[in-house]
Amino acid sequence: MLTKGEQTRAEIVHQAAILFNRKGYAGCSMADLMRHTGLKKGGIYNHFANKDELAVAAFDYAIEQVDSPLRAAMDVGDNEGQRLLNLVNFFRDYAVHPIVRGGCPLLNTIIDSDDTHPKLKQRAQATIQRWTQSIARLIQRGQSTGLFEASVDAERLAVLMLVMIEGAVALSRVTDPQTIMPPVADHLCGLLRRTLAF
Amino acid sequence: MLTKGEQTRAEIVHQAAILFNRKGYAGCSMADLMRHTGLKKGGIYNHFANKDELAVAAFDYAIEQVDSPLRAAMDVGDNEGQRLLNLVNFFRDYAVHPIVRGGCPLLNTIIDSDDTHPKLKQRAQATIQRWTQSIARLIQRGQSTGLFEASVDAERLAVLMLVMIEGAVALSRVTDPQTIMPPVADHLCGLLRRTLAF
Repeated sequence: MLTKGEQTRAEIVHQAAILFNRKGYAGCSMADLMRHTGLKKGGIYNHFANKDELAVAAFDYAIEQVDSPLRAAMDVGDNEGQRLLNLVNFFRDYAVHPIVRGGCPLLNTIIDSDDTHPKLKQRAQATIQRWTQSIARLIQRGQSTGLFEASVDAERLAVLMLVMIEGAVALSRVTDPQTIMPPVADHLCGLLRRTLAF
Repeated sequence: MLTKGEQTRAEIVHQAAILFNRKGYAGCSMADLMRHTGLKKGGIYNHFANKDELAVAAFDYAIEQVDSPLRAAMDVGDNEGQRLLNLVNFFRDYAVHPIVRGGCPLLNTIIDSDDTHPKLKQRAQATIQRWTQSIARLIQRGQSTGLFEASVDAERLAVLMLVMIEGAVALSRVTDPQTIMPPVADHLCGLLRRTLAF
């Protein structure tokens, strides 16, 4: 069980994750954080040295909200082909119903941090690497069992998948996601089946 | 020739476009704008009623910086096939060397405005529509001359192109663009040639 202090900390991180994801790091003020947590400034600074430290904790929390069901989607399925398609279908839904309010925390943090916040930028970088490596490993497992075409460059295909997914998520933020995500996801599923020959 | 007032206005818009593109709308303060233009607050407000009005002018200016060479790339080439490949090659370079400092103003404005700034969001929406329609029209022209496979859904393919391009631009912001853009551009060129059979 969480102590009262741990509960308060968790609530701050949860509210901050939503605020940063919707309004961006610079767009989220201490007043916003106070209003959404119901805490005074001191109550927040009890748990975090500064806004920076809170932003990093909020990013890690937000990404874990995505990572956890993403891992689950990749773990279910009779073989690597099904798991790969589950992954695409996970993002098919994700573009329409973001897990964290405000869209994809990875995409938002990339754009928010690239020119201004090295620590968050490095976090975004690490997330891209982890996601592409997870996808590449899944492809490689399918190659090693003989299900997938062995000559395909797994890392390159993984990058291409993430590019299509994040591009579709981006455009879905301001246009009808139903016109963006379904054709992209269908294309991706077709591409995977064709390229990996499963 | 521009009058002195018009020159000042143009310089404010130019500096604001870079600042908003790098730091985001909320991250760019009046003090930043004053420092980069060398003007006092009144000197800026002489030309713009408020930060909102300046942000919209800066977005339009930034997008025109991209639109103009983009149109040029799509106008050069012996046929629609070459023009389409020129377009991909334009973005191949764009991800590595952004035209406006801070990255793609469309992508940045999508993420910056989606939850917070309806006027900029509407601007981003219109840009997506204009870009996809330009690409779709180019494809349709190639179809009408018999160069491209006629059964392909031009608008759908145009959306897919923009998704891949903006996704690659996004990931390139925080990782080595040379590992992201070349494979995506190569894939896109291959996809276009295969799908449109040219």
